[in-house]
Amino acid sequence: MTNTIQTAVVGVTGYAGAELARLLLHHPRLKGAPPVFAGRVDAKDEARGGIPLAEIHPQLACSDTKNLKLEPFSWELLFSRGVQVLFLATPHEQSRKWVPEALARGLRVIDLSGAWRLNESANRVIYNFEDEGAELAAKTQAQAVYGMPELHRAQIAGARLVANPGCYATSIILALKPLVAAGLVDLNHGIVADSKSGVSGAGKAPTAKTHFMYAADNLSAYGLFTHRHTGELLEQIGVDQSQIVFTPHLLPIPRGILSTIYVRFSSKQTVDSISQIYREFFAESPMVRLHNKTLPQIQHVVHTNYADIGFQLASDCRRAVIVSCLDNLLKGASSQAVQNLNVIEDWPEAEGLE
Amino acid sequence: MTNTIQTAVVGVTGYAGAELARLLLHHPRLKGAPPVFAGRVDAKDEARGGIPLAEIHPQLACSDTKNLKLEPFSWELLFSRGVQVLFLATPHEQSRKWVPEALARGLRVIDLSGAWRLNESANRVIYNFEDEGAELAAKTQAQAVYGMPELHRAQIAGARLVANPGCYATSIILALKPLVAAGLVDLNHGIVADSKSGVSGAGKAPTAKTHFMYAADNLSAYGLFTHRHTGELLEQIGVDQSQIVFTPHLLPIPRGILSTIYVRFSSKQTVDSISQIYREFFAESPMVRLHNKTLPQIQHVVHTNYADIGFQLASDCRRAVIVSCLDNLLKGASSQAVQNLNVIEDWPEAEGLE
Amino acid sequence: MTNTIQTAVVGVTGYAGAELARLLLHHPRLKGAPPVFAGRVDAKDEARGGIPLAEIHPQLACSDTKNLKLEPFSWELLFSRGVQVLFLATPHEQSRKWVPEALARGLRVIDLSGAWRLNESANRVIYNFEDEGAELAAKTQAQAVYGMPELHRAQIAGARLVANPGCYATSIILALKPLVAAGLVDLNHGIVADSKSGVSGAGKAPTAKTHFMYAADNLSAYGLFTHRHTGELLEQIGVDQSQIVFTPHLLPIPRGILSTIYVRFSSKQTVDSISQIYREFFAESPMVRLHNKTLPQIQHVVHTNYADIGFQLASDCRRAVIVSCLDNLLKGASSQAVQNLNVIEDWPEAEGLE
Amino acid sequence: MTNTIQTAVVGVTGYAGAELARLLLHHPRLKGAPPVFAGRVDAKDEARGGIPLAEIHPQLACSDTKNLKLEPFSWELLFSRGVQVLFLATPHEQSRKWVPEALARGLRVIDLSGAWRLNESANRVIYNFEDEGAELAAKTQAQAVYGMPELHRAQIAGARLVANPGCYATSIILALKPLVAAGLVDLNHGIVADSKSGVSGAGKAPTAKTHFMYAADNLSAYGLFTHRHTGELLEQIGVDQSQIVFTPHLLPIPRGILSTIYVRFSSKQTVDSISQIYREFFAESPMVRLHNKTLPQIQHVVHTNYADIGFQLASDCRRAVIVSCLDNLLKGASSQAVQNLNVIEDWPEAEGLE
Repeated sequence: MTNTIQTAVVGVTGYAGAELARLLLHHPRLKGAPPVFAGRVDAKDEARGGIPLAEIHPQLACSDTKNLKLEPFSWELLFSRGVQVLFLATPHEQSRKWVPEALARGLRVIDLSGAWRLNESANRVIYNFEDEGAELAAKTQAQAVYGMPELHRAQIAGARLVANPGCYATSIILALKPLVAAGLVDLNHGIVADSKSGVSGAGKAPTAKTHFMYAADNLSAYGLFTHRHTGELLEQIGVDQSQIVFTPHLLPIPRGILSTIYVRFSSKQTVDSISQIYREFFAESPMVRLHNKTLPQIQHVVHTNYADIGFQLASDCRRAVIVSCLDNLLKGASSQAVQNLNVIEDWPEAEGLE
Repeated sequence: MTNTIQTAVVGVTGYAGAELARLLLHHPRLKGAPPVFAGRVDAKDEARGGIPLAEIHPQLACSDTKNLKLEPFSWELLFSRGVQVLFLATPHEQSRKWVPEALARGLRVIDLSGAWRLNESANRVIYNFEDEGAELAAKTQAQAVYGMPELHRAQIAGARLVANPGCYATSIILALKPLVAAGLVDLNHGIVADSKSGVSGAGKAPTAKTHFMYAADNLSAYGLFTHRHTGELLEQIGVDQSQIVFTPHLLPIPRGILSTIYVRFSSKQTVDSISQIYREFFAESPMVRLHNKTLPQIQHVVHTNYADIGFQLASDCRRAVIVSCLDNLLKGASSQAVQNLNVIEDWPEAEGLE
Repeated sequence: MTNTIQTAVVGVTGYAGAELARLLLHHPRLKGAPPVFAGRVDAKDEARGGIPLAEIHPQLACSDTKNLKLEPFSWELLFSRGVQVLFLATPHEQSRKWVPEALARGLRVIDLSGAWRLNESANRVIYNFEDEGAELAAKTQAQAVYGMPELHRAQIAGARLVANPGCYATSIILALKPLVAAGLVDLNHGIVADSKSGVSGAGKAPTAKTHFMYAADNLSAYGLFTHRHTGELLEQIGVDQSQIVFTPHLLPIPRGILSTIYVRFSSKQTVDSISQIYREFFAESPMVRLHNKTLPQIQHVVHTNYADIGFQLASDCRRAVIVSCLDNLLKGASSQAVQNLNVIEDWPEAEGLE
Repeated sequence: MTNTIQTAVVGVTGYAGAELARLLLHHPRLKGAPPVFAGRVDAKDEARGGIPLAEIHPQLACSDTKNLKLEPFSWELLFSRGVQVLFLATPHEQSRKWVPEALARGLRVIDLSGAWRLNESANRVIYNFEDEGAELAAKTQAQAVYGMPELHRAQIAGARLVANPGCYATSIILALKPLVAAGLVDLNHGIVADSKSGVSGAGKAPTAKTHFMYAADNLSAYGLFTHRHTGELLEQIGVDQSQIVFTPHLLPIPRGILSTIYVRFSSKQTVDSISQIYREFFAESPMVRLHNKTLPQIQHVVHTNYADIGFQLASDCRRAVIVSCLDNLLKGASSQAVQNLNVIEDWPEAEGLE
């Protein structure tokens, strides 16, 4: 295919990285052009040219991946392979450092970390942006587009730096933005977003909280009033701190997010009036599935690339509960990154994702 | 012990019934007086005098239970054994029919179903109270006390009929009642109670929703704006339908409830002012554990008889998130029933429960 | 594509049926020719032309499935659509009745039930083959080929009736056949196959054993010495009842099988000698992945179409433990069915499965 | 009670330690004499006199534990409190060092680690017994009794050092010892013990293998032919390496072990002949429950102190599969330790355990 491009992935060893690798390897427009996988590799593995992908993720072993390796990262490696688009599935500290250099070297970047998602410096405190390098950071941030095609399709198409959204944030913004943008929501009344996520959202590092004995048969709330995705909610939905409360919980399942969102309307609504707003907002958005009368569940979305949204209206026609579900590793991370790639390359937005 | 009394349990085959059996069998005041277990038994089992308890619940097999059986129910059986207190762990339809007769025969009843929890007929629609027998029902209801010792200790002590609270309701009422009673909560702003329960709450009948493949690796919201525990919330907390939204979810775990509750205060509060209210409210309540700075999790309460409550105050001092946890089969059902027995018998409230 | 064929699936409502639908819908050779889904449909759904696939399996909702329905079954329906290959993901009683008719009507059949897997009538007792119709059954059975391409590729290619193997049987036969066929295994010593399966293997019907409360946090052995897959093991591996013990267990997970298999060799072996036998046996088999030094786990195979095999040799070089894993709904059912389709149609064996 | 003794626990922070604390706190003979909890404590916690037990294990918070703390360990602390029996729920390296000193200071020790379980030095290699201190180690080992009351009741009664058995080993030895001791088992044919354990058996340290994402929805075999419990099996059952294969697996559940054990008999047996042997062997053993016709499951034993054993005989009357279950933290660790205490103190063996 003439429009094949060369991609690279840094951070393939993580959970989102593994899914990103799988999606890019099966993407119809990237047939015959597997991503370059690059990252930190110890001396022993460097001596053998890197670590076979099938050793890192045995589930990915197949004839197509037989010769693929995680190779020692260097900018030279990327250029020698003709990489045009770089995916970073790395911690935000690393993205903070690498993105300016990647841009300077002419690469497009789709960054899955939180480093470049926030426009307002007050919100960015959470990512510990130090004073040093503030000028470069500001310049870089100015190039970043928040990578949610349902909201920013046009800007993403031309972006050099796409800041791929947070998983919780995606589930909540997609559910709320249409209603808030249409002016339906009584913001003074306060929105509640009660979210629940599987353990993969906590990353691959073994910690007390990712121990099976902590997470299994349990549910715990955390990060009350302070979770780092809050800034994305405020900026993208267009509300302030006093107008929304967001509480994440750790579910005893590997993957999936369900957000239960409580809103009050400024005036009486009907099921149809609300449905209509959602339908229009997502008319061109193939990765959002609207439920009609039913409510989505986590089972409907895990291992899919969709965000599912449903709602129930109270009998007083003034209050609604919205339920929004997605797979945190896919629409909440890697498949949204591929969706952004599709938008950038002007391919069909759902290409390789259905 | 001179104050031993004779109890009976109808409904021992269910999950709450099994826990109730375990608690009564180990209760220090009931040593040597195991409950009579009575219920429906088929002809074959009737011929062998009932079904050995250890066959129904192999985990309960021990030297103390060797000779215990689920015997064919009859009022005569209860009287021949000198039963004084009858526990009903039965569906509400059955409790509706049996309780008036039990009271007429002079038994005290602790009913774990929803049949007699609601004072206002509007709320009781959910339990399909038919017109026939309305007079008897009203008369029976008039004798019922809502069996939450933390709220109604004195009335329970003298009650002939204790309506043991619902599991969700217990977790929410205990968290909200102290704050609402103290006048702190801005009720016009609306309370949100987002609750999550393990599968045992759905009962033992195999259904599409209790199938492992439905519940595992999943989370689903259900009963939005219509769950049958809503009436208990309204009556016991003292709010109306427009002031609270309650959404239950089905967690992929066997047992445990966590309720995340969102309130807005009429005036600014401090962590200390709120803590103080909780401490005073529960000063005499051994089965409620207040968390100080930390938040409870489901793991802290499963297989215990406690309700755990913690909270976090927003930096604006006007909003708080309260987290309330309990084991739905224990403090949410059977151990609360035993706690009610303790209150009735004037034994220490936590006897046999710590 | 000129070689597109028309398929139909009966039994899409089950777990294996859902996966079969997904695989056929994404199969590159079947682009634009979605399967006909047919089955029992009640009057109300019949009136609206069937049940939308996305209602039955919300996770399958996408633009490609928008117009697909489960339609009321009739042979006429199949013929009017030009169906050539019929997949039956139905109980064995139903397959027993339908397969002779389908064959008589000129359809090729890939049957996922156990109805036609067994050549020896002694082994078939388990499927309650009644006396009536014995002649037709014998005639039908004579046309059946056991649908494991790794063993019977050539016969499958020309078969009118493919009896798709059982999930447990697949995991055990693939692990044992190469070693037994090579004459390595001391059969008099006895083989032990200790297998563990996720709950989806027990089917979609809600029963006491598929209740979340039974399966979760549990492990149970069942069907000792009598499981219905035993006959397949005996016939396909070539051993008799006294030479193998097979014990299935119910794992508290949705899907995946791991079989731990214990063998004793007639003579001393090396890791290399055993590896060599496996490599040669599976040289042309793309759906079997051999582990080298490591052992497969269920996580490596769920949501993949592979069977993974690894082993460990004892220091006495006379005993080995073989570990064999697969996804019971995929290589243990639906993806093996698609693999058989590929063989029949002379397409690459792994087409649509990697 | 006049026969109350003073106990101490080192290692209360772990999973088995928490259960041991719970059991000792509720033991009827230890009323009013809670254990001393001692261990490593950092400077900050030392300054406040230790860490409140309810902070370490919130589920243990109750009126009885309000004033209990994990105190900084010192031998002086133990003596000042009059400790007579010391429980070590510590890694074997620590037990190796501390036990000789504890014995020298006149304490009785019940050690839950593997340090002192093995009589034959060849088997002890696994615990890295260094050369230095070999003499003291040998002298200490000579005093150790393998703490399985069902096998060594008399010796435990007078022991200064009880080596509490391993969890896997307990489940297998209890199932096999009666049959092997009775001479029924054809040892030349080889025994297979296929065991599956919940994650708590892997300890509290967060590692790649205890990560929720590794363990959940998974099953993996490990330690093939080399697991450290093998030595206990050989010594206690009385077999050699060539006569048994033991394979442990990691189950995706918090707790519980199920061992599926395959034996061949030297001569034909009946269900009654085997049952009779088990019944006689365990006639005086209250913590073993024999299943009659049914098979035990993990659900029957978790949160109980029992080992459950059942079996199925093949129709050839020469082979049997035995299923043995226990809670790895209870009968596989802490409740067996309390059972040993009961034997030492000449209290009823099941005291505080039913």
